[in-house]
Amino acid sequence: SRSIRLAVIPGDGIGQEVVAQGLKVLTAALPQDIKLETKEYDLGAKRWHATGDTLPDEELASLKNHDAILLGAIGDPSVPSGVLERGLLLKLRFAFDHYVNLRPSKLFPNTSTPLAGRPDIDFVVVREGTEGPYTGNGGSLRTGTPAEVATEVSVNTAYGVERVVRDAYERASSRPRKKLTLVHKNNVLVYAGHMWKNIFDRVGQEYPEVTTDYLHVDAATIFFVTQPERFDVIVTDNLFGDILTDLAAAVTGGIGLAASGNINPTGEFPSMFEPVHGSAPDIAGTGKADPTATVLSVALLLRHLGYDAEAARVEEAVAADLEARDDAYRSTDEIGDALAARVAG
Amino acid sequence: SRSIRLAVIPGDGIGQEVVAQGLKVLTAALPQDIKLETKEYDLGAKRWHATGDTLPDEELASLKNHDAILLGAIGDPSVPSGVLERGLLLKLRFAFDHYVNLRPSKLFPNTSTPLAGRPDIDFVVVREGTEGPYTGNGGSLRTGTPAEVATEVSVNTAYGVERVVRDAYERASSRPRKKLTLVHKNNVLVYAGHMWKNIFDRVGQEYPEVTTDYLHVDAATIFFVTQPERFDVIVTDNLFGDILTDLAAAVTGGIGLAASGNINPTGEFPSMFEPVHGSAPDIAGTGKADPTATVLSVALLLRHLGYDAEAARVEEAVAADLEARDDAYRSTDEIGDALAARVAG
Ligand SMILES: CC(C)[C@H](C(=O)O)[C@@H](O)C(=O)O
Ligand SMILES: CC(C)[C@H](C(=O)O)[C@@H](O)C(=O)O
Repeated sequence: SRSIRLAVIPGDGIGQEVVAQGLKVLTAALPQDIKLETKEYDLGAKRWHATGDTLPDEELASLKNHDAILLGAIGDPSVPSGVLERGLLLKLRFAFDHYVNLRPSKLFPNTSTPLAGRPDIDFVVVREGTEGPYTGNGGSLRTGTPAEVATEVSVNTAYGVERVVRDAYERASSRPRKKLTLVHKNNVLVYAGHMWKNIFDRVGQEYPEVTTDYLHVDAATIFFVTQPERFDVIVTDNLFGDILTDLAAAVTGGIGLAASGNINPTGEFPSMFEPVHGSAPDIAGTGKADPTATVLSVALLLRHLGYDAEAARVEEAVAADLEARDDAYRSTDEIGDALAARVAG
Repeated sequence: SRSIRLAVIPGDGIGQEVVAQGLKVLTAALPQDIKLETKEYDLGAKRWHATGDTLPDEELASLKNHDAILLGAIGDPSVPSGVLERGLLLKLRFAFDHYVNLRPSKLFPNTSTPLAGRPDIDFVVVREGTEGPYTGNGGSLRTGTPAEVATEVSVNTAYGVERVVRDAYERASSRPRKKLTLVHKNNVLVYAGHMWKNIFDRVGQEYPEVTTDYLHVDAATIFFVTQPERFDVIVTDNLFGDILTDLAAAVTGGIGLAASGNINPTGEFPSMFEPVHGSAPDIAGTGKADPTATVLSVALLLRHLGYDAEAARVEEAVAADLEARDDAYRSTDEIGDALAARVAG
């Protein structure tokens, strides 16, 4: 009988709580004959405080031996900014070559949006995950002195851009509207921007069925709030994707609903699924965290592993649960139970 | 008697039309005994097509001999992306050391916002204008081949960061709420981000009356749409400021109302005032452009030159005009006339 080897990194703050719900729903969704083997990894702020480790090589090697990774949230104010992000979260994305950072945005019925008029929102951002200003290139000279110079280098390769652009065309081509928008800033970041645009145009010749568009990142933020229904698939750089997907989450029901997949499409490395939100230490342990983003990330995980019907069932359960929500308080656990029951039922 | 030497760069598309209204209002606002001497510069797409020039040295030198510059808009789809931006607009900002790119955002009564519930919005973004990823550092290797590598280097100096941070503290200190938020991404862009944060904290010790806050740029976009009333003064990097101010414009009545000043606070070089919007070639010549952003930029210009009462009069005229607007169509020219009449009246 088949099995799934799942690595679980609950992480910090509400990470623990939301991941528990994700696992509940995953178990409820999987066919009976699929064995789910989970292995938990103790990584994050507590571990770093205790041992100084962020992600030791042996654990990285052990994580590799899995079909997928489910991650809760990483980060705590007690840890200097950047230590866990660079040393753990981004290390995973880079080591496992997660070049497609997939972030769907959908405004479900009965969810709140800060936008008047409730536009129809249903798009997906394909954010590059292994290049751009996220590579850690750069440095600081004369640190802390009045003569300090600090640089950050955005590194972009045709290899890296072409593969993510191609992935985005494939996704656009398989969706009803077949529209792909490139977002960059090629009027200022001319070297990287022109390379992105040239590759985008060239690869597009292989997808004549896909309608294309280009927007500068600043203009894109305007359309996110005035006309989000115009977007279908968006492909963009690592940093622009980071910014745009938080904004997208904000206009589609909040960061409590935003799912993401850090995908290695070749299958050479395990892909990693995580909610877009952070560890929210202010509400950790209170049962107030909404596990929906994690559950939707589980749906992405299922689809990535080929369980399309199961993924759809999870997404339908989320839609039904949101539709049925009233103002009554439900804890993280209760929402998880309700979702698992819908999926099982 | 005193005089103002104003350089005028109408530029492309609607630039011509909106600048004409700005000048009308400026003339109406200035005290009778102030002589306004304007000199127009023919720069932009048409000039580039005709001569290949973007901004020749002699014109740059001649522009320097002014008290301020009023710019309409630069850019046209017929010119390759980046040519006019780098060769003209950014060249001016860099050559004249416009290190404070000032962008106020205010939701006037009776203006449309995509946000439900019409939050109270009244903040100003102090965007760094001479560093960051805008310096043009970077390059492309093996351009156009599958082995291409393109880099963009964000250059940040303690010198450049401290002066803009200090300016932002001064502004925050002089406003009723006295709150300053630093926006960066110091969990990923650790070199530049930590330098910004350290300088922000250190300079803040000289301004104990100012309440401070730090947000990652992605989180900031969320608050721009869910809780924009939390912001008073924001200080940020050149690129983050570009992105955030378009979003800010979108939530406060649209890009047709967003003003900006490219300011050299030392007075060594002329400061430059321009609407945030672009040249909008699709509506150029139709009389549909809203000149309000340019008129509000004229108010910033007046304040920069020390005409505080006149600046306030222009802003009040804009507020009154917006308040009185109904659905009746008014051309660019008619709006300009109405504003000039209010200012004169
Ligand atoms: C925590 C941080 C490193 C991360 C990022 O910038 O990618 C987060 O904001 C995200 O979007 O997943
Ligand atoms: C036209 C472009 C170079 C410019 C910028 O990126 O600064 C514009 O978007 C702005 O905000 O003034």
